[in-house]
Parts: sequence; C-alpha cells; structure tokens
Amino acid sequence: MNITTYMEQVGQAARAASHATAKASTAAKNTALLAMAAAIRRDCAVLLAANAEDLAQARQEGLDAAMIDRLTLTAKGVEAMAQGLEQVAALPDPVGEITDMKRRPTGIQVGKMRVPLGVVGIIYEARPNVTADAAALCLKSGNAAVLRGGKEALRANQAIAACVREGLKAAGLPETAVQVIETTDREVVGRMIALPEYIDVIVPRGGKGLIERISQGARVPVIKHLDGNCHVYVDEAADPTKALKIVENAKTQRLGTCNTTESLLVARAVAGSQLPAIARMLLDKGVEIRGCEETRKLVQEAKAATEEDYYTEYLAAIISVKVVAGVDEAIAHINKYSSKHTESIVTENYSHAMRFLREVDSSSVMVNASTRFADGFEYGLGAEIGISTDKFHARGPVGLEGLTSQKWIVLGDGEVRS
Amino acid sequence: MNITTYMEQVGQAARAASHATAKASTAAKNTALLAMAAAIRRDCAVLLAANAEDLAQARQEGLDAAMIDRLTLTAKGVEAMAQGLEQVAALPDPVGEITDMKRRPTGIQVGKMRVPLGVVGIIYEARPNVTADAAALCLKSGNAAVLRGGKEALRANQAIAACVREGLKAAGLPETAVQVIETTDREVVGRMIALPEYIDVIVPRGGKGLIERISQGARVPVIKHLDGNCHVYVDEAADPTKALKIVENAKTQRLGTCNTTESLLVARAVAGSQLPAIARMLLDKGVEIRGCEETRKLVQEAKAATEEDYYTEYLAAIISVKVVAGVDEAIAHINKYSSKHTESIVTENYSHAMRFLREVDSSSVMVNASTRFADGFEYGLGAEIGISTDKFHARGPVGLEGLTSQKWIVLGDGEVRS
Repeated sequence: MNITTYMEQVGQAARAASHATAKASTAAKNTALLAMAAAIRRDCAVLLAANAEDLAQARQEGLDAAMIDRLTLTAKGVEAMAQGLEQVAALPDPVGEITDMKRRPTGIQVGKMRVPLGVVGIIYEARPNVTADAAALCLKSGNAAVLRGGKEALRANQAIAACVREGLKAAGLPETAVQVIETTDREVVGRMIALPEYIDVIVPRGGKGLIERISQGARVPVIKHLDGNCHVYVDEAADPTKALKIVENAKTQRLGTCNTTESLLVARAVAGSQLPAIARMLLDKGVEIRGCEETRKLVQEAKAATEEDYYTEYLAAIISVKVVAGVDEAIAHINKYSSKHTESIVTENYSHAMRFLREVDSSSVMVNASTRFADGFEYGLGAEIGISTDKFHARGPVGLEGLTSQKWIVLGDGEVRS
Repeated sequence: MNITTYMEQVGQAARAASHATAKASTAAKNTALLAMAAAIRRDCAVLLAANAEDLAQARQEGLDAAMIDRLTLTAKGVEAMAQGLEQVAALPDPVGEITDMKRRPTGIQVGKMRVPLGVVGIIYEARPNVTADAAALCLKSGNAAVLRGGKEALRANQAIAACVREGLKAAGLPETAVQVIETTDREVVGRMIALPEYIDVIVPRGGKGLIERISQGARVPVIKHLDGNCHVYVDEAADPTKALKIVENAKTQRLGTCNTTESLLVARAVAGSQLPAIARMLLDKGVEIRGCEETRKLVQEAKAATEEDYYTEYLAAIISVKVVAGVDEAIAHINKYSSKHTESIVTENYSHAMRFLREVDSSSVMVNASTRFADGFEYGLGAEIGISTDKFHARGPVGLEGLTSQKWIVLGDGEVRS
C-alpha cells in the first residue's frame, strides 16, 4: 500500500464528509450515536473475539503487562463504551450556538456562532475504547474524524469501526465521517500531521514520547497534553483539617493520574504545626517523602530532595516537599518547576487565595480543593477529548467546545459602511 | 552580531518581562499607555526626523511609490498613533475576567479566568505606526511583545520604541516588556518563529508572501490573515434597494481592503430584474465585470469570467459575477471558491438567511450588510491586532481577547474527589 496515496484518499474523504457533519442536525448526530451504541452492545461477542486475537498476538510479541492491561476489553468495558456514546448523545449540541449579539452604532448586530473545526485527527495507543469515545466527541461537535489507533489494537478497532459506520449509515450521514485507519504502517502518523489541507487539528493521546514527537513534526495545530507535575501549597492561613484531607486525596487517591499531586509546599509559619501530621499520613500510606532541609528536620523519615525532584512527575508513591516563606515563594516556585497542569492553595486568607488564583500560570488553579478534580467530567464538560497544557486555543480539560471555533455573524437591514 | 545569541537574549528578557506584565494592574498598564502617548506627542519632531532619514534611504534604494506611502509618517499620523494608545488605555482590561462559574455536584465551583498568552511576536512590514499599535495591544492584554518591523522603517521604529520604553518605565513596568528588534538582519525572522520556549504566538502583518513564508516555517502558533476573496449573494428574495446599496458599498467604497467584495452571485429568479441595474452602477464607477454566460447575456459590457477569476482577490476595480440557481448553489460556490474571510447574503427570506449563516464556512457571515463591516473596530473590539482566516484559537477580527487564553479556576471548601 502506498501510504501517501492512501492518506490523500482518506484526507479527501474526510474533508468532503466534514461538510455533511458540519450541517448535520442534532437529531441526526444523536441518532447516529445511539445506533453506534446499539451496534456495539449487539456485537459485544464480536468485539471480544477481535480483542482476543489482538491479545494473543500481543502476548506472542512479548508486550509488557501494563500494555496488555490497556489493550484488554471486557464485556463490562464494551458496555461502558456503549454508555459513553449514549452520554455524548445526551450532551447539548455545541454547533450553531449564538452568543454575544450586540447592536453597533451603525445599526448592524454583531455576535458569534459556534462552528466545528472541520476534520480532527486523533493518534492514540493501545486502548480500543478511545475509538468509540473519539468518534462520538468529533461527530457531536460537527467534525469529521480520522482515527489512528495503536497497531496492537487493530482488530478490535476495526470491529468498533464497523459499528461506528453502521451508526452513521443509520442516520443518513456519510460513513467516511469517521475513518479508522486500516493499516499499521507507522508512516501514517507522519502523513496525518502533514496534511493541513485535509486535517485541521491533531489530538495525540498517549505517552509523553508520542506527544512530543507529534508536536515537533506537526504542520497542523496540536492539542497536546504533556506532564502533570501538580502542586498543593499549604498556606500559613490553611485550615489544618482541610489541608490534611486535600493532600491525602490529591496524592494518594490514585498515584498514576496526571492530576495527582507530585509536590507539596508548606508555609514556614505552619510547617512545625502541620507538616508532621501530613507527613505521617503520607508515610502511613507508603508514600516516600523527598524534602528540603527544613522538611527533614521536621520529618525524620524524609530523604533529601534534589533540584531534579522538584521538576519530576513521579506517577508513583513519592512526593517532593519544600518549606517556603509564604505565598510569594510558593507562586514563584510553582511557576518555575510546575508543568502548568494543576495547582491548589489551602488557605482561609482571601488575599492569598486571590493572588494564587491570578498569578499561578497553570491550566487549572484551585483554592481549598484536591488537584484530582482537574478533569472534564468533574468540571461538567460531560466528556473529555484530552487535557491541554498549551495556552493557545484550549487550556486544561478539553470537551466538545475545544473541538469547535466561533465565526462572526452580522445581522443587518441594508446597512453599509460610511 | 550573532543573531542566535541576540534572539536568545531577547527571548529570555521577554519571557521574564511577561511574568510582570501578566500580573500588572490595570492602572499600571494604562499609566504606561498614556505615558507612551504623551512621549510620542512630545517627540513628534524627533519621530518625523527619523522617518525622514528612513524615507531618504528608501528613495535612494528605489523603493516603489506604494511602499514609500506606507512608510511615510506625518504630524497627523503621529497624533493618530498617540490617540490610538489612549484608545487602548480606555478599553476594558481583559485579564482576570472571571466567567461561567458553576457549582458542581461535588460542591466545588468551576469556571474560567482570562489570562495573557505570554509573549507575542509581531512581524510586520513598512508601516511604523504598527510599532505603537502592537505594543499597546500586547501590553493591555498582559503580554510581553517582541516586535520586528520592516528594515525600511528602522529609524522611526527605534524612535517610537524609545517612547514605548519611557512609558513602561513611568509605570514601573520592565522596559523589556516591549522589545523592538534593533537589527535589520533577516535571520531574526527565522529565529523568532523557532523559539517556542520564549515566544508563544506570532502575528505576521503584511503581504501574503510574508505570511505564507512565516506560517510554513513556524514552530509556534501563528495568527494569520491570508486572502480576502469576499462574496455578496443577491438572493431571489432580495430587496432590490438593499442589494444595490450593499453591492455598491461592498465593492466600491475601497478597492484595496481585505473585506472588499470580489465576487457577486445573483439568484437566477432575479438576475433579469436586478443584475442590469447593479451592473450599470458598477460600470459607471469604472468597475470591470467578468461574468458567466448568463451574466453576459444580461450585461453586454461584461467580459467572460474564467474558473480562475472566481478564486481571485482582485484588490482592484474588477468583480467576478455568476448567476446561480439559488441559495444552495450560492453556498456551495462560496464554500468552494472563497478564501473564507467574509460573505453576505441579501435576502428577506428567513430560512435562506439562516441557512446562509449556518452553512457558509467563513470567518464572518452576514445578512443584509456590506462585507466592508468585517473589521475589529466595526465589530466593537475597540482595536484589532489582525484578522484570522484560521479556525484554530481565533477566527475573523482579533482584538485583545485573541491575545489571551482562559485558565480554569476551582473554588472549594476542602472538597476531595471520591
């Protein structure tokens, strides 16, 4: 197969289909999503059989346990996929929303209408459920989609793709509105990110290595999600009960997620009174503490933190700890070391809370809440295509709105410019 | 001068200054803008002298009349520059604006806060007034700026830069918050678009060639403005008086602007009754008509339009004309041939108006209004850094808001995730 020719065909078909999805009615899009869900439920056994073949090959090729885990579909996982499609059908349609209509002195009325981006390319790794999930979000936001999943999940992805096409057909939408790449040739990724005439935005989902490679080579915009080196700062005016509860949840509820706290800052004025209890809680839960000099004086078990530790997203039972002078040093430290994902201050002081909210340059900034809340569902977006650590276009959790843009509309009555 | 080292220094200084501009108070930013305006007014003679030297060299090097015209500063132009700074000072501060705060079932309150993009790089050609203009917009939106003007305007730009620095200093802001590149070395442009660690977005202002070169090579996002091949569609339900007035204004008020109409579509049902009068008006104003077969039957003076004509932004006294079956063909024609800048339908029919608004994929879509209204000032943005023909991030006229992003903020009371 000539990949350049193949991707040219895929791109042309996606662009053509995007005109149909852009003007599709909400009813047609929801009909398609519900029909996809029904097909996936009906074909549960087919999907599991395809996945079993993928898994057999993966084991033969010696893939590691974590990869096998991400690749594995269960009957429960298939049901969750179908429910996910139904949930997206239930979300409000962002396309066509009109806002900010204002009358100008000339007589014209000017405002904005929300519109799809066009064609969205998604590049992801082993998880087959991303196929249904991404198809749903792209379609509901009026976009056509080109999906390129990991080669390990090819058979399951093709089985899901058949259900997606069936749903599109049932709603009278072009089956090319969602195309799942049928080859495992790695050259596809290189082509996808170099076709600005056919693909308007790329969303990579996967490890940092994948995302960095794609961002560096891309000739189209990329909504990307890199590190999550998140912080909790316990201010001198922190309520000790809230501080303990928030650090516990932020660090230990789940160790491997991007919104897990990796670094704890404590104001010097309350380090003596609050840090020992927080450290005890963490140590009791098996979390290793790597602290500054002052931390180590208060917490015997703490190891010495290096400069590198403060930059690190552990995704493991380790936390870095630093005693700081107060809110100024906390903000400066975070703006230097953080990956600009999510940070939280624990404080009862209004001015400290406001300064933290305004001056911390991260995609989510919180007061008296666990960093674990940084998530599209928790924020009420209903669904999430990813989390952006960029500032351009979309920042933080990206839902349906992040897959749209706004055009200007002008309502006149024969006005001309003088 | 080693350009790589120089741009590294400029970039580092800009990044550092951007932390100060991001948290600068509205009062400090306005103080700086008003002090810049005062300095520019006071130094009018200095600016004109610097410009005279630029002009002398430009004439010596044989620059064409259009370029000389764009390069020329007058006392009136200097006053307009000062007033422009005062107008930006009077605009509401977009930074820190909090919107959409919603209470979630978990108890947290989630919403968005508007924040600067960081460092904005502007690459422009001969007009020296862009220096003051761009400095003002970047500062008001809380960004640091790196400005690279055309080599022809170097002396005037440096004189304006001195006034800008004086204003920043008067407000206690870092003078490096706005840096005007001091060398004419063309390598600067290549470096500016390849420093994602220091520059967050590039706004090129100038000819299409410049913008295409920058977009193709850029490793940072570009807010770009390409063609303006704008259309007016006279629907079968058009009011003939409005149609005539709108086409006249859209095509002939100014020939060389990006929002000037370049192509006229007329519904077959009214071509016989309305096109001859519209054509007569255009011909009387010296506009050459290049039309389809049907147009030429109705308008003797019309020349034959080629396929190429329908793609062309003339920026001249020429218009392409096509008779179409109705709103469907008009939408299809526009979505094929337009540069997606601005299109207007003239109609009294509600459904045709709505379909045109929804289905035409351009940055501005109008009903019964002249395409000439597509402009940041006319839309009430107060100022304009450019017009985006992209969909990603910003579309259409870009004001202060386009130079910002939104971060998520979460207000809690000790909530944790379960």
